Amino acid sequence: MLFVASDRHVDHRMLEVHNGEVIDSFDGPERAAIIETALRARGDHDIIDPDELDTDLLGRVHDADYLELLATAWDRWVADGHEAPAAMSFAWPARSAVARRPADLVGQLGWHSFGSDCSLVAGTWRAVRASAACAHTAADRLVAADERAVNALSRTPGPHATAGQFGGYCFVNNAVVAAQRLLDRGHQRVGIVDVDYHHGNGTQSITEHRSDIVFASIHATPAEEFPWFSGYADETGTGDGVGCNLNVPLLRGADVGQWFSALADVLLFLSDAVLDALVVSLGVDTYDDDPLGTFGLTTLDFTKVANELSLLDLPTVIVQEGGYADAARGDNVAAFLAGCPRPNALS
Amino acid sequence: MLFVASDRHVDHRMLEVHNGEVIDSFDGPERAAIIETALRARGDHDIIDPDELDTDLLGRVHDADYLELLATAWDRWVADGHEAPAAMSFAWPARSAVARRPADLVGQLGWHSFGSDCSLVAGTWRAVRASAACAHTAADRLVAADERAVNALSRTPGPHATAGQFGGYCFVNNAVVAAQRLLDRGHQRVGIVDVDYHHGNGTQSITEHRSDIVFASIHATPAEEFPWFSGYADETGTGDGVGCNLNVPLLRGADVGQWFSALADVLLFLSDAVLDALVVSLGVDTYDDDPLGTFGLTTLDFTKVANELSLLDLPTVIVQEGGYADAARGDNVAAFLAGCPRPNALS
Repeated sequence: MLFVASDRHVDHRMLEVHNGEVIDSFDGPERAAIIETALRARGDHDIIDPDELDTDLLGRVHDADYLELLATAWDRWVADGHEAPAAMSFAWPARSAVARRPADLVGQLGWHSFGSDCSLVAGTWRAVRASAACAHTAADRLVAADERAVNALSRTPGPHATAGQFGGYCFVNNAVVAAQRLLDRGHQRVGIVDVDYHHGNGTQSITEHRSDIVFASIHATPAEEFPWFSGYADETGTGDGVGCNLNVPLLRGADVGQWFSALADVLLFLSDAVLDALVVSLGVDTYDDDPLGTFGLTTLDFTKVANELSLLDLPTVIVQEGGYADAARGDNVAAFLAGCPRPNALS
Repeated sequence: MLFVASDRHVDHRMLEVHNGEVIDSFDGPERAAIIETALRARGDHDIIDPDELDTDLLGRVHDADYLELLATAWDRWVADGHEAPAAMSFAWPARSAVARRPADLVGQLGWHSFGSDCSLVAGTWRAVRASAACAHTAADRLVAADERAVNALSRTPGPHATAGQFGGYCFVNNAVVAAQRLLDRGHQRVGIVDVDYHHGNGTQSITEHRSDIVFASIHATPAEEFPWFSGYADETGTGDGVGCNLNVPLLRGADVGQWFSALADVLLFLSDAVLDALVVSLGVDTYDDDPLGTFGLTTLDFTKVANELSLLDLPTVIVQEGGYADAARGDNVAAFLAGCPRPNALS
């Protein structure tokens, strides 16, 4: 399989607030390196660099003022005299407030995020740009060649990023970037399926009013897990997107049977949606030993997930999302890719 | 002057996230102790304990599910196995989310707060309750006796607390508790004037739709300062409260002349509002050397502030809010109180 990777994320080394402490983020550079090493070791994948970032495409997925903040936050943080090694906010708009975007940097960081689990450092914007470029490059290669699946090894990840807010380690929504690119290249209706342990609240937020992108997500119920405030089954889309959003929330500790039962529902939903391309938000934090998850998937199960998604018989971009069990991460992603259709398997 | 104080706040010792670091909160127990010591040293104030908390009153100012969280958060934090010494969230509802209150503690902490500058420890709920009790006890003493002004030395402070969210070191809105008590005891229309450096976003949020509580605030513009997302001049009230909210935002570094010019506007507004009682949210972080402020008021200026507010000739409850310059805090509050009318001055 072809995959698109960049090492331009290595200097994006965040701090995060997690349950009352500031810690080195779970999303460290090693996350991507471990996956890439595992894939290279197998030797059956072609690895290419991303094309130059399409900033116009980025501007159609995200708000202009948000992108401007991402691009300038670190320099402003330093210029404002802040001494902490990562730029983050400590206040967000109250639900009851008549909220407006402030001019101050720390206020803008709150306006343009939904948590303190994400911060910006000197290398963040470079990483974010490279990650988005991986996503649209993968989409382009899928369209241009006879590939049935192309993998974007994106870091930073994306599914929690809304049009104007970062959070959950996500700054740009790479899955939506890939889907939008597929639409721009002639596809009519693209599905995004999110198998990350956590609800893709950003992806839903960006796509829920649209009918040309159909979103389905299996995740731990927001009643019990991050990102907490959306991801329920009755969120089925709004406006033009009514019926184009499927959430299958599972209780903490759901077993493998429950997870694959949810996947069956997702497959039927996506099949009924009459798609001509698919984007997979591939989180592997559903793995049994993941420190941020409570589900019980094994490494072999990830091959089965890919096998089942292949039943949709759609050209597919795979975008890398969460997964925090260092020892198994590479194997889990490799197992998923092993279950995807090969270039000539269906041609 | 009579003032109501309690030492039940001493175990409320928070951590806060501030510009990318977790630090001991600026709002430490010493804040109140310094003021009390300064007042006792002067010897011209009667200090009493608060009455028992009126939980019914608290329930009419704040949401039931919010108060339940405050009451139980610390025990739940420990029971859930969290090891950090203060309970706080790291994620808040995104502006775009169809947001719902989750069941999980960390999610609820995000739902019921607007920042990571506030956390709960074992002693928090006790402190919050005692602080609210100081506020309504002060209101009761004002009504019952011939006092023209009674001072509630409340800690935790209050003006950032909304009906259902904590933040900015505030959990219960003591100024609104005092104002509501004055209304319950027969007053017809109560003003709250907030002279703290930071906008009283919580007070505005609770009162902006009401005509029986009139709110006026002088503060650093939210474009440049915490709490960032409300406090602009065009927020003048909603529904029944249209015209009952006055914000006078000033730029960072505003000088004393600008501040007193703003106070003149506030006095005219409150005078026109035809009030029969006043609550002062007394923040002294407008002081020249305050580490969280940029205004330039001197200690003597606080006497002048009280003198000017006395022109309204209203029975007044003074509630203690912000003020973080340790060396001058006690003197600044004492200077304000020295400018307030004495029991027999107007009788």
